[in-house]
Amino acid sequence: MGGDQAPQAVVAGALAAAAALPDVDVILVGDDAVIRQHLSAHGAPPRNLSIQHASQVVEMCDSPAKAVKRKTDSSIVVSMNLVKSGAAHAVISAGNSGAMMAAAVMILEPIEGVDRPAIATLLPTETGRCLLLDAGATTDCKPHHLVQFAQMGALYAPIALDLPEERPRVGLLSIGEEPSKGDELTKETHKLLSACELHFIGNVEPKEVVRGHVDVVVCDGFVGNLMLKAGEGFGELFGELIKEQLMKSWVSKLGALLLRPVFKAVKKHFDYAEYGGALLLGVNGVVVISHGRSNGTAIQNAIGVAARAARGHLAERLPSLPCGAQS
Amino acid sequence: MGGDQAPQAVVAGALAAAAALPDVDVILVGDDAVIRQHLSAHGAPPRNLSIQHASQVVEMCDSPAKAVKRKTDSSIVVSMNLVKSGAAHAVISAGNSGAMMAAAVMILEPIEGVDRPAIATLLPTETGRCLLLDAGATTDCKPHHLVQFAQMGALYAPIALDLPEERPRVGLLSIGEEPSKGDELTKETHKLLSACELHFIGNVEPKEVVRGHVDVVVCDGFVGNLMLKAGEGFGELFGELIKEQLMKSWVSKLGALLLRPVFKAVKKHFDYAEYGGALLLGVNGVVVISHGRSNGTAIQNAIGVAARAARGHLAERLPSLPCGAQS
Repeated sequence: MGGDQAPQAVVAGALAAAAALPDVDVILVGDDAVIRQHLSAHGAPPRNLSIQHASQVVEMCDSPAKAVKRKTDSSIVVSMNLVKSGAAHAVISAGNSGAMMAAAVMILEPIEGVDRPAIATLLPTETGRCLLLDAGATTDCKPHHLVQFAQMGALYAPIALDLPEERPRVGLLSIGEEPSKGDELTKETHKLLSACELHFIGNVEPKEVVRGHVDVVVCDGFVGNLMLKAGEGFGELFGELIKEQLMKSWVSKLGALLLRPVFKAVKKHFDYAEYGGALLLGVNGVVVISHGRSNGTAIQNAIGVAARAARGHLAERLPSLPCGAQS
Repeated sequence: MGGDQAPQAVVAGALAAAAALPDVDVILVGDDAVIRQHLSAHGAPPRNLSIQHASQVVEMCDSPAKAVKRKTDSSIVVSMNLVKSGAAHAVISAGNSGAMMAAAVMILEPIEGVDRPAIATLLPTETGRCLLLDAGATTDCKPHHLVQFAQMGALYAPIALDLPEERPRVGLLSIGEEPSKGDELTKETHKLLSACELHFIGNVEPKEVVRGHVDVVVCDGFVGNLMLKAGEGFGELFGELIKEQLMKSWVSKLGALLLRPVFKAVKKHFDYAEYGGALLLGVNGVVVISHGRSNGTAIQNAIGVAARAARGHLAERLPSLPCGAQS
């Protein structure tokens, strides 16, 4: 029931995922009648798609913690309880992300030794993708929070990025490569990560990130969320400027026509929908938080992200962090 | 003597500025013999260009504060002293930016009531440009530092952006528009700015910034510097992806040929060299810090930035901040 284009986009994405991933069972959680109505437009539903009724909806304006406590029959709370009970291996929502986080922490509970949750999201790079965390779950981090994020990211990266190597390259986002560059949080975290058993490559600047020099990029949630939003913003600016220039002459209009596949390919590389969703790390279970603007493709890919994490036994592996959690 | 392409780029930029701005006197500060040698390649120097000898150079590897204390005849220290004595209205360097800041604070001294300096830099937007500060002078800011940055930015913006209005729109960079969104620093600063006499429009996300909804964007120096570097990084990524795609077929190569002016125009809009340099605000004098990679165009534009700030009597106006400095 969540997201700007729900329930149509969610139903369409679920159907596409059910068809593409026949060994995945998709459970649509929400108002039974509404879901059936949207499903009916697509013909007979496949056998690996079912419905779990939930009578309430957490709205975007709802206060996260209150909504989780009071709306116990909301789609977010019901689907989170499916994971808690073991009836589902993962939960996905494009709805109120604050409520998703609150429900995950309150129902699934934090992993022992992890003090704060982090959102791990995929970023496009010149060579492929990398994992950035935290992308917005926890602001005002302490150094040991960032160390825990690094540990969780290093465990998740091989699954998320399909890495052959066991020890992904972990970098600390900063404004210079030297350990002395950055704010107090970064400088202190650099010391802790250097003493850790991770494959820590030191501070990384945004240009190293986009060049694909690092697999896991660690930062505070305020900074990480700004980075994501800056990427969206700059991409939009770039697109608008090109579009404006293209319309200026017949020559450029012809050029634009010839380059349509090029622009499409570049746009696809940046499209959040291709990335599907971000994983909330630090709770006992696989929780995927999708963009509020998610279309069917984004939902389909989010189901793929969730299935990969569940198959990789991420939730079982996280509680044994490599160099011991520090709180 | 400073910058990756010094002294050629500096000499070329100074000559171009002297020709374009006949009512500006340009003083080249550095090794007299070396400067004369580079000048000689360009014919007779114009009457509004002179040389001030300085026997030493602050290197990129020098520790800023130590270099300023020990290399008293370095081009950075000598040129800063020209401003201090009133012999120059402004100083520009593409050299060691840490040393520039240290020299500015130690020689020109902070403005009374301003606790920390800030670097104000121009960012491209869909409609033109906006001013971002702090772009890297001060990390680990306190809320009252950001308020002072906002006050200084609001005074400088009409000069930097050629704004007709007296009260530029000031926004606080954050991860959501609501006052409750952001880290502790942002939330506390939001309260202080709301009580201030500035035209404070509230929190702004990167997408509002690139759309041109705000004139002055305020943030901590760590965050601001990352934003700048992310912009450079994403721009590079965008360019690389397009280039790669363009080479894939004859059709796209032809399209690329037709669109060469378009790509050139968009690149120019993003080119740091067109922006010339960032102003160090919070010290008694006009100090322009240019990109280490500055070419002649960047130096020429930096001289333009400095001349506008000096003509706008920025250094004289800053000490009377609009709603009283709080320390």
